[in-house]
Amino acid sequence: MKIQVLSLFPEMFEGVFGSSILKKAQESGRAKLEVINFRDYSESKHKQVDDYPYGGGAGMVLKPEPLFAAVDAVKHQTAKSPRVLLMCPQGERFSQQKAEELAKEEALIIICGHYEGYDERIREHLVTDEISIGDFVLTGGEIAAMTVVDSVVRLLPDVLGKQASHEQDSFSTGLLEHPHYTRPADFNGMKVPEVLLSGNHAKIEQWRREESLKRTFERRPDLLESATLTEQDLAFLETLKN
Amino acid sequence: MKIQVLSLFPEMFEGVFGSSILKKAQESGRAKLEVINFRDYSESKHKQVDDYPYGGGAGMVLKPEPLFAAVDAVKHQTAKSPRVLLMCPQGERFSQQKAEELAKEEALIIICGHYEGYDERIREHLVTDEISIGDFVLTGGEIAAMTVVDSVVRLLPDVLGKQASHEQDSFSTGLLEHPHYTRPADFNGMKVPEVLLSGNHAKIEQWRREESLKRTFERRPDLLESATLTEQDLAFLETLKN
Repeated sequence: MKIQVLSLFPEMFEGVFGSSILKKAQESGRAKLEVINFRDYSESKHKQVDDYPYGGGAGMVLKPEPLFAAVDAVKHQTAKSPRVLLMCPQGERFSQQKAEELAKEEALIIICGHYEGYDERIREHLVTDEISIGDFVLTGGEIAAMTVVDSVVRLLPDVLGKQASHEQDSFSTGLLEHPHYTRPADFNGMKVPEVLLSGNHAKIEQWRREESLKRTFERRPDLLESATLTEQDLAFLETLKN
Repeated sequence: MKIQVLSLFPEMFEGVFGSSILKKAQESGRAKLEVINFRDYSESKHKQVDDYPYGGGAGMVLKPEPLFAAVDAVKHQTAKSPRVLLMCPQGERFSQQKAEELAKEEALIIICGHYEGYDERIREHLVTDEISIGDFVLTGGEIAAMTVVDSVVRLLPDVLGKQASHEQDSFSTGLLEHPHYTRPADFNGMKVPEVLLSGNHAKIEQWRREESLKRTFERRPDLLESATLTEQDLAFLETLKN
């Protein structure tokens, strides 16, 4: 998969794109990550990328020309017309489902603004997906773009090793994960639950399932509505409600 | 404000902490950002930080000792007992309200895992806030920590200049932003709405409010429930429903 990020702050991506799984995915050729400064596509004398808003008001607005020119230039580098993502607080809420959908693409272009608003024509005529990572305000779209890239690239075939398998990811069962414990069994008086030391695998599985249901019930009851639950799960949830 | 991030991949933070607003906030002394590799606090021979889970299963679990030791060492560097945030998918959903709450603190410690689960004793006895940035899986907590740091630091006094004022942020009115336009008025046949070129400020304000209501109604009707709406807003929303 090829991902081309358009940003005015390409240096922001260096640490994240150069470490860990994203580094390995590039080294193995599974992912090609490129960051392009779309200021280079401004044809104005001072490489201007933003301007005052029509109708007045504070803040600047990203001009259409540099972004249209940048997307036009880079999209021809990939096999077919790639999806163009815009990171913005007004967008569709990013989710694991969206990550899985994007992981099937051959190429993605991701546009990041910084401080400024986007000229509406960018949204309407250039972009295929507007994406928000949540109801909070960031200085720019860069960290949001890193979020999307990381969550998508780790889903590509052969990117995650056995150690980091995504089979037991949160959300993969539709429930929150059960608690984990490792050595020491007693850390300053804080002890590991007896059942995990018992060697009884059926009991351990039951404990884990119940803890997972309990945590989901307490913290994210909304997830229970779409999770696949057995008769036994439902009976356990009934005991929690009482 | 002092923020200390505990991570096994400190190099991931360089680009983000060294650019834009976060760079400026550190230069002006408004924010002190420090990234600490908690592997340095492992007392084992091979600087081990994780171990196999009790009860079996795939994946590794972060051991309690290095993180307890790291938090214990760094928390004495700030004036009073700081909040300790754990980035994890099971946590409370991060929001602008949470960012505003955290921006009032004198110091924060943020713990990032990577691949591994956390030993439950870390959650129960070391951490004050478990935070998730959304329902998607990341390789580690680092990008989530950057999200929290960026959204919190930009709210600190004097960090944002006039250009990047947060008065007109998304969510600050409780509604999604209205569309923005800048020059040219006609870009390849895509035109700026007439009203914005009219110079009639009352009409422009009305258009913006209505577009903001319309976009929120179409994309995020849930926000309308908690937004402050006038009689006129409510009447306009009625026309949208019909």
